[in-house]
Amino acid sequence: MATITEVGNAEIYSPLKVLEHPEFRILSAGEKPAPTANIAAFYNPAHEIHLVEKPKPKPGPGQVLLHVRATGICGSDVHFWQHGRIGDSMVVRDECGSGHESAGEVVEVGEGVTQWKVGDRVAIEAGVPCSQPACDACRTGRYNACPDVVFFSTPPFHGTLTRWHLHPAQWLHRLPDHMSFEEGSLCEPLAVALAGIERSGLKLGDPLLICGAGPIGLVTLLSARAAGAEPIIITDLFQSRLDFAKTLVPGVRTVLIKRGTSAKEQAKEIKEAAGMDLKVALECTGVESSVHTAIYSMQFGGKVFIIGVGKNEQVFPFMHLSANEIDVSFQYRYANQYPKAIRLVAGGLINIKPLVTHRFSLEDAISAFHVAADPAQGAIKVQIQD
Amino acid sequence: MATITEVGNAEIYSPLKVLEHPEFRILSAGEKPAPTANIAAFYNPAHEIHLVEKPKPKPGPGQVLLHVRATGICGSDVHFWQHGRIGDSMVVRDECGSGHESAGEVVEVGEGVTQWKVGDRVAIEAGVPCSQPACDACRTGRYNACPDVVFFSTPPFHGTLTRWHLHPAQWLHRLPDHMSFEEGSLCEPLAVALAGIERSGLKLGDPLLICGAGPIGLVTLLSARAAGAEPIIITDLFQSRLDFAKTLVPGVRTVLIKRGTSAKEQAKEIKEAAGMDLKVALECTGVESSVHTAIYSMQFGGKVFIIGVGKNEQVFPFMHLSANEIDVSFQYRYANQYPKAIRLVAGGLINIKPLVTHRFSLEDAISAFHVAADPAQGAIKVQIQD
Amino acid sequence: MATITEVGNAEIYSPLKVLEHPEFRILSAGEKPAPTANIAAFYNPAHEIHLVEKPKPKPGPGQVLLHVRATGICGSDVHFWQHGRIGDSMVVRDECGSGHESAGEVVEVGEGVTQWKVGDRVAIEAGVPCSQPACDACRTGRYNACPDVVFFSTPPFHGTLTRWHLHPAQWLHRLPDHMSFEEGSLCEPLAVALAGIERSGLKLGDPLLICGAGPIGLVTLLSARAAGAEPIIITDLFQSRLDFAKTLVPGVRTVLIKRGTSAKEQAKEIKEAAGMDLKVALECTGVESSVHTAIYSMQFGGKVFIIGVGKNEQVFPFMHLSANEIDVSFQYRYANQYPKAIRLVAGGLINIKPLVTHRFSLEDAISAFHVAADPAQGAIKVQIQD
Amino acid sequence: MATITEVGNAEIYSPLKVLEHPEFRILSAGEKPAPTANIAAFYNPAHEIHLVEKPKPKPGPGQVLLHVRATGICGSDVHFWQHGRIGDSMVVRDECGSGHESAGEVVEVGEGVTQWKVGDRVAIEAGVPCSQPACDACRTGRYNACPDVVFFSTPPFHGTLTRWHLHPAQWLHRLPDHMSFEEGSLCEPLAVALAGIERSGLKLGDPLLICGAGPIGLVTLLSARAAGAEPIIITDLFQSRLDFAKTLVPGVRTVLIKRGTSAKEQAKEIKEAAGMDLKVALECTGVESSVHTAIYSMQFGGKVFIIGVGKNEQVFPFMHLSANEIDVSFQYRYANQYPKAIRLVAGGLINIKPLVTHRFSLEDAISAFHVAADPAQGAIKVQIQD
Repeated sequence: MATITEVGNAEIYSPLKVLEHPEFRILSAGEKPAPTANIAAFYNPAHEIHLVEKPKPKPGPGQVLLHVRATGICGSDVHFWQHGRIGDSMVVRDECGSGHESAGEVVEVGEGVTQWKVGDRVAIEAGVPCSQPACDACRTGRYNACPDVVFFSTPPFHGTLTRWHLHPAQWLHRLPDHMSFEEGSLCEPLAVALAGIERSGLKLGDPLLICGAGPIGLVTLLSARAAGAEPIIITDLFQSRLDFAKTLVPGVRTVLIKRGTSAKEQAKEIKEAAGMDLKVALECTGVESSVHTAIYSMQFGGKVFIIGVGKNEQVFPFMHLSANEIDVSFQYRYANQYPKAIRLVAGGLINIKPLVTHRFSLEDAISAFHVAADPAQGAIKVQIQD
Repeated sequence: MATITEVGNAEIYSPLKVLEHPEFRILSAGEKPAPTANIAAFYNPAHEIHLVEKPKPKPGPGQVLLHVRATGICGSDVHFWQHGRIGDSMVVRDECGSGHESAGEVVEVGEGVTQWKVGDRVAIEAGVPCSQPACDACRTGRYNACPDVVFFSTPPFHGTLTRWHLHPAQWLHRLPDHMSFEEGSLCEPLAVALAGIERSGLKLGDPLLICGAGPIGLVTLLSARAAGAEPIIITDLFQSRLDFAKTLVPGVRTVLIKRGTSAKEQAKEIKEAAGMDLKVALECTGVESSVHTAIYSMQFGGKVFIIGVGKNEQVFPFMHLSANEIDVSFQYRYANQYPKAIRLVAGGLINIKPLVTHRFSLEDAISAFHVAADPAQGAIKVQIQD
Repeated sequence: MATITEVGNAEIYSPLKVLEHPEFRILSAGEKPAPTANIAAFYNPAHEIHLVEKPKPKPGPGQVLLHVRATGICGSDVHFWQHGRIGDSMVVRDECGSGHESAGEVVEVGEGVTQWKVGDRVAIEAGVPCSQPACDACRTGRYNACPDVVFFSTPPFHGTLTRWHLHPAQWLHRLPDHMSFEEGSLCEPLAVALAGIERSGLKLGDPLLICGAGPIGLVTLLSARAAGAEPIIITDLFQSRLDFAKTLVPGVRTVLIKRGTSAKEQAKEIKEAAGMDLKVALECTGVESSVHTAIYSMQFGGKVFIIGVGKNEQVFPFMHLSANEIDVSFQYRYANQYPKAIRLVAGGLINIKPLVTHRFSLEDAISAFHVAADPAQGAIKVQIQD
Repeated sequence: MATITEVGNAEIYSPLKVLEHPEFRILSAGEKPAPTANIAAFYNPAHEIHLVEKPKPKPGPGQVLLHVRATGICGSDVHFWQHGRIGDSMVVRDECGSGHESAGEVVEVGEGVTQWKVGDRVAIEAGVPCSQPACDACRTGRYNACPDVVFFSTPPFHGTLTRWHLHPAQWLHRLPDHMSFEEGSLCEPLAVALAGIERSGLKLGDPLLICGAGPIGLVTLLSARAAGAEPIIITDLFQSRLDFAKTLVPGVRTVLIKRGTSAKEQAKEIKEAAGMDLKVALECTGVESSVHTAIYSMQFGGKVFIIGVGKNEQVFPFMHLSANEIDVSFQYRYANQYPKAIRLVAGGLINIKPLVTHRFSLEDAISAFHVAADPAQGAIKVQIQD
C-alpha cells in the first residue's frame, strides 16, 4: 500500500549513494575481484568502461535484493559507453552503471514484501515509474511516459549489470521453472518488440515488412511470426544477418538492402518478394533511407511503425504519405509487456534462446562489451552470466 | 511519492474509526446540531436514515481535509437506504454514511501535500483505488476495476455527504473559478456518462438511442449531444421527463415507452423517429424490456452500451444479436473522466446546472432523501449544500 | 465495370431456373448418374436428402463455370436437411441444393472475364453480395450485412455441392499451386474463424478460452494459436474431441465440461487451468450454459465473442457482465477473409488438413451427409470430392 | 444491380466525349451565353481560365442529369488553373472543367433509376469509385483509395462547375427540404474535415490544435467543436482569419503564428493558451513549420493528423516523435462521409453558411475564380450559383 511521503524513487535509487560510498572503487585492469564482491560494469564521460566494486546493499521497505544471474548487452549500453549520450536528456556525466536486460534470484526481501521469498527466480523490469495517481502517465496505464521514471542504466541511474541489485518488489516478474535466467533477461528486448507489435495493430495474416535484422529486428521477427503475420519480409545490409533470420523463421522472405539503390527501388523489390503491397512495417533501424523504403512498400492505409532510433531530424516523403494515408507511429520503451513476454516464451510461442551468440562471466564483462561493440564479431546478443 | 508500507486505504479510511469513536452518535429526530459539527446522513441495516455526528478528522500525510459544499443524491444512495444492498458484495451491515457526488473546499492539508492550499475549490473523486504497480487494474489505467478500491458511500465505507471529509490529495480535481460547487458535484454522474460514451465509441454524427430520461439518461443526453450524436432519440415511460429532455436539448427526438407494447414495436417507432436504424444505444435503465428495445433499434454492427443496472439475470434475443453483429457492452463506474468532465463543463460544452431541481441544507439532508425517493416529487437531481 | 441494369444476383442465380428446367430431376435411390452429369445433393421441406441431376449451365457475362472439386459438409447443411430452417428467414420451401464450403477448377469463362482462364484453381466465396454503392453494407466494406446477398445453399439459393457451378468471376480466390482443393474448401470455415478472431480483437499473448471442440472450435483453435493466443483453454463435452484438439495444438489446455456442473464451477476450473482469468472467449457452441461459463471465466474488461449459434433467446448474467465490463459480441458469416485465409494456409501458419476425417465421392454425397449427421461416427469434417 | 460489362466509368465519363464534340467551344471574352446553354469554367495547360459551352448530355442507364445549382471553389481548382498540376499524377494536359463542391437538382433520370425523380435536390459526391468486388479499396469500404476512381475536376475528368452535369444515380445524396443548395455544396469540404476527424480518433473532451484558419481549417473547427473537442486552439498567420474563427466558434482560443518564431516557441505559446499539452492536432496547412509546431504541441501519445497538402518532402523531428510516441497520420479525400455531413448540417450541429463570403452567377464564374485566387480579397469560400 502506498502512503504519501517525501521520498521518491529518484532519491531511493540515487546514484550518489553508490558513488559517494567509501567502498565504491574502480578495479584496476586485470584485478581479480572477490567472488561475492558487488562488481559492475561502469562507463564514464571519458568513454572508458571498467569494472567497479560497490557495497552490497540492504533491501528497504518494499524492496528486494537480487543476485543478477543473466544480463544482455543492449545497443544503448554500448552507445552510452562510446558516445556518452542519447539525445539531450540522457547524458553520462559521472561513472554510471550499465545494463537493463536482466534476470536474477531473490536473496533477501525488505519489510512488507510478502510476494517474494529467497530463491525466487525473476525477470527484472528495469524502468520503475512513479505510480502516483496524480501522474497522468501512470494513472492511465501508459507508464513508459512517466516523467519521474527511474530507468536503471539510463544516466544518471546505474544499471542492473552488477552482482547484487536492489529493486522494488512490485517491478519483478516471476519466471516459470522451465525458463532460464537467460530467457528471463531476453524478455527486455522482447518487451520492446511486443510493445511495438501491440501498438502497431499488427494482426493475424497481415503482410509485414521488418526493417533490420539486428537484435531488435530479430526479436521482432520472432514476435511477429508468433502473431501470425504473413508474409513477412525482412531487410538488412548484411546477407549473414538475413541468413540468420532464415534459421530463426524459415518462412521469412529476405531482401538485401544495397547501398546506392533508391528507396523506391528497394520497395519495389520488397513488394515483389511479398507478392503484394504491405500493410505494416516494423522499422527497427531508425535510418532515414530504411524508413523511406518502408513507406514506399506500404499499401494505401498502411502503417510504418518505428521502433528504431536514429537522427534527430529526418526527411519524410510527405505527399506520398498523404496520398496513401500511411500512418507513421513510434515506440518509446514499453509498458505492461513483461507478463505477456514471459507467457509467450514459457508457452513455447517465441523461442528467443538462439539469439544469444556469446556468453561471458561477470568478471569478463568488459570483454563482453568489446565483442558487442565490434561488428566484425557478428554477435547478435552478448550475455553476461553470474 | 509512494513508499511501500503495510497501511492501505482500507485501513486509513476504515469506517470503524468513526463508528467506534466516542464522539460518534446518532442525532435524535429534530435535534439541531452545532453549526460546525461534523454531521452526516447515515443509513443502516434497519433501513433507517438519520443525521449523525462524527468527530472532525485531522489530515494525515498525503491527505486533505475538505469542507464538503455540495452533494447530489444518487439513486444508489436511496437504494442502499431502502434495500440495504446492491448485489451480494455491497451490503449495509452497520451505520453507513451516504453520498459520493460531492465538491468542496480545502480547509487543511496534511504532511507532504504541496499541490493544495486552504481555500482551493475541488471536485472529489469518490473512488480511491490502490494505485499499486502490482495491481493489474491500477497499473493498466483501468482503475475502476481495482479490487482494493475505497469507494466512499459504498458499504462499508462512509460517504462524502458530511461536513468535514478527509480525502487523499491526489484524488481531488481543481474547479475553475467560474464553476460552482454544485457543478463540481455533478461531475460525478457526468463522469459515469462520459465513461460510457468513451467506451461506447460514440462518434460525431452517429445516430444514437438513449434509453431512459432519469438523471443518468439526461446527463448522457447532454454529453452525447456535446459529442455530436445526431439524431438522438430518447425514451422514457413518462412524458414529463421527455419534455424535460426537450428543454435540455431541443433537437432531441422523444419516444414514449408504453407498457404492453412489445420491444419490436417500440423499436419500430424509434427507428421511424430517427429516420434510420441506430448505430449506438446508451441504455440507462437496466430494464430488460428497454434493453430489448435498444437491441431491436440497432443497425447491423450496432452497439448497445448498458450504463443502467438492473436484474441479476436477463433474457437477451441471442439470435437477433448474432445475425446482426450487435455488440453488448457495459459500464462499471469510471476511470480518468474527472479532468475531462470539468473541462467540458467549464468550457460551456455541457450545461449540467438545469438538472438540479431541488436543493436542501445539510441539516435537512434527511428531507432531501425523502424527496429523492418519492417519484411523485418529480425530482431529477436533489442537491444538499453547506 | 458495373453498369446499372435491372438484373440482380437474385435473378441471375434464381433457383427456379434449375427447378423449372425440364432436365431437372431427382435421381432414384441407387441410380448411377453419368460421369459428367451435373449432379448435386438436395434437401426438401419433407426432410429428405437425395441426389438430383441439373442442366450444366453456361457462364454469362462476368461469370465463370467451375468444376467443383471439393466440398465440406457444414453443420448448417445438416440442419437445413433435418430441421428445414434456421430462424424465420431461412426456410427450406422447395428442393434446395446444399453446400457452400467448396473449391474448384475453372472450366469455362463468360464474356468480359479476363482474370481467369480454364484450369485455374480457386476457392469459392459462397456469399455474393450486391456490391452496389447505394448499399450501406457493401459500400462500407461490411458486405456480410448485405440484405441482397445470394449465399449459395442458404434457401432459396442452391448450393455449391454439385459438379458444375456458375459463379461471379470476382468472388473467386486463386489457390496457390501447393494448396489442395480440400484445403481450398476448408477456407470457408476458416473464414468464419478468422472473421471472429479479427473482430474479437484477439492479440498476441492474450489468454483465451475456446468453447467447443467441434469443426468451428477446432478451426478457431488453429487460428487463435496462429495469432499467438497464450494460454489457450478449450472445452467440450467429449474427451475424445479434447484429445483431438491436443493433437492439433499440443500446447492447448483442455477442460472437460460436465453436465450438472454449474457455469461458475466450470469457469473456476478453466481459470485454474489457465493460471489466470481470461481476456477473450471465442464461444463456438451457442449453448447458453457454455456462454455463461465463458462469461464467468473472463477478467474485468474481457470479451466473450460468440461465433456459435443457438437458442433464439438466452439468459445472460447481466449484473456480472455489468460489474466486470465484459463485452459480448457476435459474428455473422464473414467479409474480406478469403485472401487472408489462403495466405495463412499457403504460408504454413495454419494446417487445416487434419480436420478432414472422412472423404466421399460426389456420387456418394448422401452417405457423406449421414456420416456427418451421426455423432457416433466421430467425424470432424466430412469432405466430398470430385 | 451490377452486371459485369466492359464499360467503366473512365469511358462513360471520358473527357474526350466533350472535347471532341462538335458543339464544344470556348466562349470569347465577354460573350453572353444562352440562359440554358451548358456553360462551364475550364482551365488549360496554358494556365488560362474561361467559360466554355458544351452539349447538354442525356442520362444513360443508372445516370441522372442534374442542374448544378451551387458550387464552391476549392483551393485545388485554383491550383490546377494556376499551376497545372498537383503531384505527378494529376496534370492538366488539355482543356479541363473545374469544380467538385456542388449540389443540384434532378432534371432527368436514366433507365433503371428508381430512387430519384425530377425536382429532387441533391448533394453531388464528386468522386465515383469503381465499386467492383475485385477492387480491394472498394470492397473493404475505403473507396477513396480506388485506383479507378473518376473524380470530377481532377484531370483529365471535367468538373461539376457547369450547368448540366451527368452523374451516377448512386453517388448522389438527398438534401432535406430545409437545407439549401449552398449548404449542400459545402458538404464537400465538410466531408474532408469529417473524414479527418473520424480517422484522427478525436473524441469528446480531447484538447485539440487546429493549424490554419482557411476554409478547411474553419470547416474543421466547426466539426471539431460539434465533436466536443475542448479546448480548441486554432492558429493562423493572419489575425483577421483568427478573428473570423472566433465569430464562428466563440469558445475557440487563437494563437497568431509569427514568421521567424521557432516551432518550439510557437508550441509553447499554444500549450499555454490551452493550459495543457494537446492530444490531437488537425493540421490544415501542409506547411512544414506548422507541422513541426503541431508536433511540439502534443502530449506523449498524441496524434498529429495532417489534412493539408504541401511540399513533396518535409523534415520531421524524428527523435521527438519517437521519444513521445506521437503518431502522424494523413487524410486523402474521404469515404462514407456525405450522409453524416448532411445529417450534421440538417440537424443544426454544424452551421456552415457563414463560410460563404462571396457569391457569383455561373456566367460570372471567371470573376469568381479571380476573387478566390487573390488573398487580398479575404474570401473564405467563393460560391457560384445558378
